[in-house]
Amino acid sequence: MLHQSFHELTIPTRGRGLYDFTDEVAGWVAKNNLKNGLVTLHLRHTSASLLIQENADPDVRRDLENFFARLVRDGDPLFVHTAEGDDDMPAHIRTALTTVNLSIPLHNGRLALGTWQGIYLWEHRRAAHSRRVALHFIGE
Amino acid sequence: MLHQSFHELTIPTRGRGLYDFTDEVAGWVAKNNLKNGLVTLHLRHTSASLLIQENADPDVRRDLENFFARLVRDGDPLFVHTAEGDDDMPAHIRTALTTVNLSIPLHNGRLALGTWQGIYLWEHRRAAHSRRVALHFIGE
Amino acid sequence: MLHQSFHELTIPTRGRGLYDFTDEVAGWVAKNNLKNGLVTLHLRHTSASLLIQENADPDVRRDLENFFARLVRDGDPLFVHTAEGDDDMPAHIRTALTTVNLSIPLHNGRLALGTWQGIYLWEHRRAAHSRRVALHFIGE
Repeated sequence: MLHQSFHELTIPTRGRGLYDFTDEVAGWVAKNNLKNGLVTLHLRHTSASLLIQENADPDVRRDLENFFARLVRDGDPLFVHTAEGDDDMPAHIRTALTTVNLSIPLHNGRLALGTWQGIYLWEHRRAAHSRRVALHFIGE
Repeated sequence: MLHQSFHELTIPTRGRGLYDFTDEVAGWVAKNNLKNGLVTLHLRHTSASLLIQENADPDVRRDLENFFARLVRDGDPLFVHTAEGDDDMPAHIRTALTTVNLSIPLHNGRLALGTWQGIYLWEHRRAAHSRRVALHFIGE
Repeated sequence: MLHQSFHELTIPTRGRGLYDFTDEVAGWVAKNNLKNGLVTLHLRHTSASLLIQENADPDVRRDLENFFARLVRDGDPLFVHTAEGDDDMPAHIRTALTTVNLSIPLHNGRLALGTWQGIYLWEHRRAAHSRRVALHFIGE
């Protein structure tokens, strides 16, 4: 019998970096006894992203962060939108280069993630934030 | 009672830049009395993208455009595919760096967008175009 | 009558480059007589991506590959995560800059792709790999 579920997660961040919240998503799936369907995550912000990435070696996250920091420089004189801080416009661009929504099949109660895939919130601002992710499920 | 709806929007552009069409999507949702489910948008082109971005300060869109124009230069001598104009290959790359589809939960008749999020068509070609976005809804 | 289907495709690659597998997706749709709904693809890896791009001129794929190879250089001294090869960290970054999941409406038995759009697996490692893509359909 097909049905839907909705939820909202709040992910606290301590500033720039990648935060694994795979367990929060899997926990919501388990608690609601969701088995087969499609799980969609939508991040309700424009200066942070969602990312599926390697969850093994923490150096991968460090290198990702350092690469993006070099590609999109804080305080780049190109930017006109600077009133909210010199990391604000870079945060918008980093968000545009990644994404704010993901849809992942759920089969036999398991998200179709690969062995090395984790679901991350990527905080792009230097300051700590509280980020909200809308969750949706349709299936059975 | 779960059901589906399909539609296609046509978005006229005046050349390179970001075009907010959140109201067109929300208008389709309201007109069809869609309440709870998943809204998917698929752009049927390879030289324009879909983007969820800040809808407050227009400088954010200007800085986004200028950053991408610097990152992917028109007429870069690296490019072999130049027959359709020196902005064509950059348009394909800008599309690859962003996305052509989005899935957004709809809850109580409202898209799960954050306060500052708008849905944009990003035209990457310098000339005016007419862009088609396939819409899909499943839910109740 | 709404229902779901699940499947997994295996895409063999011969190393870095774009592999069109639109026909494999369309073949699964036809074989299962799927007509109207939403098709979701999720790639179960962190060093390859999914991409919707131009399927006409092969120079587009060559230019895309060359642009990304210049943007994210193999062996960049910035990278700390090098144990799996000097193309491994670039592969993770190229994946972050693109995406690992896509959702495409299906209407009257046809994917809502534009005339020039193909569905590609983008292999980012230099060596040959076997890549797995989870497929999900919900609709009728």
